[in-house]
Amino acid sequence: MLFDLIIIGGGPAGMTAGIYGARQKIKTLLITKDFGGQVAKKAVAVENYPGFEKISGIELIEKFKKQLQRYEIDIEKDEVIKVRKVKDSFFVLTSNKKEFEAKTIIIASGADPRPLEVPGEKEFIGKGLSYCAVCDGSLFPDKTVVIVGGGNSGFETALFLSNIVKKIYILEYGSEVKADKESQTVIKETGKVQIITNAALKEIKGDKFVNSIIYQDRETKKEQVLDVEGVFVEIGYQPTTSFVKGLVDFNEQDEIKVEFETCQTKTPGLFAAGDVNVGRFKQITTACGEGTKAALAAFNYLKRLKK
Amino acid sequence: MLFDLIIIGGGPAGMTAGIYGARQKIKTLLITKDFGGQVAKKAVAVENYPGFEKISGIELIEKFKKQLQRYEIDIEKDEVIKVRKVKDSFFVLTSNKKEFEAKTIIIASGADPRPLEVPGEKEFIGKGLSYCAVCDGSLFPDKTVVIVGGGNSGFETALFLSNIVKKIYILEYGSEVKADKESQTVIKETGKVQIITNAALKEIKGDKFVNSIIYQDRETKKEQVLDVEGVFVEIGYQPTTSFVKGLVDFNEQDEIKVEFETCQTKTPGLFAAGDVNVGRFKQITTACGEGTKAALAAFNYLKRLKK
Repeated sequence: MLFDLIIIGGGPAGMTAGIYGARQKIKTLLITKDFGGQVAKKAVAVENYPGFEKISGIELIEKFKKQLQRYEIDIEKDEVIKVRKVKDSFFVLTSNKKEFEAKTIIIASGADPRPLEVPGEKEFIGKGLSYCAVCDGSLFPDKTVVIVGGGNSGFETALFLSNIVKKIYILEYGSEVKADKESQTVIKETGKVQIITNAALKEIKGDKFVNSIIYQDRETKKEQVLDVEGVFVEIGYQPTTSFVKGLVDFNEQDEIKVEFETCQTKTPGLFAAGDVNVGRFKQITTACGEGTKAALAAFNYLKRLKK
Repeated sequence: MLFDLIIIGGGPAGMTAGIYGARQKIKTLLITKDFGGQVAKKAVAVENYPGFEKISGIELIEKFKKQLQRYEIDIEKDEVIKVRKVKDSFFVLTSNKKEFEAKTIIIASGADPRPLEVPGEKEFIGKGLSYCAVCDGSLFPDKTVVIVGGGNSGFETALFLSNIVKKIYILEYGSEVKADKESQTVIKETGKVQIITNAALKEIKGDKFVNSIIYQDRETKKEQVLDVEGVFVEIGYQPTTSFVKGLVDFNEQDEIKVEFETCQTKTPGLFAAGDVNVGRFKQITTACGEGTKAALAAFNYLKRLKK
């Protein structure tokens, strides 16, 4: 079957593109393993999406999904492994060995947590080391944990964990944390969090489970030990974009280069919206805005194709 | 008083920028005559803002406003008439002859309905001619009206009026209407709407009130008369941007040129988000996304200023 539009990914960018595509009555397929992207995994409530003063990520995503499903749109629970272009058509191959054809593509496949790449990381995954506080936080009641990364997501994770654990360290590589001031104030008020800046994580140690980490103080160059039973990784995300190699340009983080008025990549008919592109501000609002722009730009492209 | 950020405008872009600015704990002032921009004047329910399957524009704007007011932010009910830059500071002059100073500015002042510029327009404003169906529609029960403009807003206006009036003409200058397919289907189902394409409006006629319009059929070049008691203007919007002349570049429609990743204009520290900029897709989602990008970019600019 030939689609007008295939959307790859089911986070806010993909779902918004789906709503806009379906409203334009273009034959649309959305391929995703699961819905919600990073929002569904958020540890604390969303407070910066206009319209909802405070709502859990999961609840917000349910609303998006219900709205999307009001429209005529095909949904395929699968993972994309390759996109090819032949003449005016794109061919999308999935893990389940299905192939779909479309005239336009919106890549909205988001990004996964970036790994630490230090000794002990692979060994202790699921044994004290976690990339998802909302999934694993409840396993650490009254324990001492460290969060690696002092950006917004690190501080959100700290806020979430502060209701569960006894003590939290936040390890920040830079000379100051990058979380917004609102989050910093709230975290201070918990009284449970100690921030360590200029700290380069060197190793995760333990026996069966994590029992400590080693970091280097980047000013004194001395190595320090922190006794912790949990390590939460919050050093950002990396997109999975290898399936579209050759059709787009990447930056050093494998993010897809786009022209931001339309989210168009270097290949006509191929768009990239949300966390997967090079945009420096990765928010729910920006993902929705970009999903909208990509869908409307895809619609305009289709109209030109017909002429 | 010196502000970190002044936001000009209280529609979705301005309010989202306000939420993000305030969450960053930067001293923020929002100047607007009223809240809601074009959304508050929308004739039919909003169905394409993710999170709400169907909500009136006014209700959605109330939610935005309540959320904004949770934060520490100054709000000034006023109109901006001039923005000047002196060294690293912007000075904002208002109708009430107040002057405010800030280190960064986000222009989110939206756009007003574009006038028809035909004979009879000025004469019949409020006498059968309206730029706001949601304001004036109820004055036309069981009457025959014409909507000038066959884009999405023209069709939304038709849908709204179809519950009130007897018969609706939609006059479209181009060879086909530009409304999305979803809207076209819904309008067809009302059975009340007749679409006339290739029609150039020439004059609005009447006595005390509108009683007809004259248009030229652009194919046959013949003039035609339509007997109508109401004229609703939906031919797009034009921004009021003269207050910022000299600091930004404009396109032919007086829209402000920006770099879309950050909504930065040609003047450092000065941003433009939402309907007021040259962006070709003007939706609530895109306004919120751009408001977010502008606020976070302004925050980054402020951090660099301090160094």
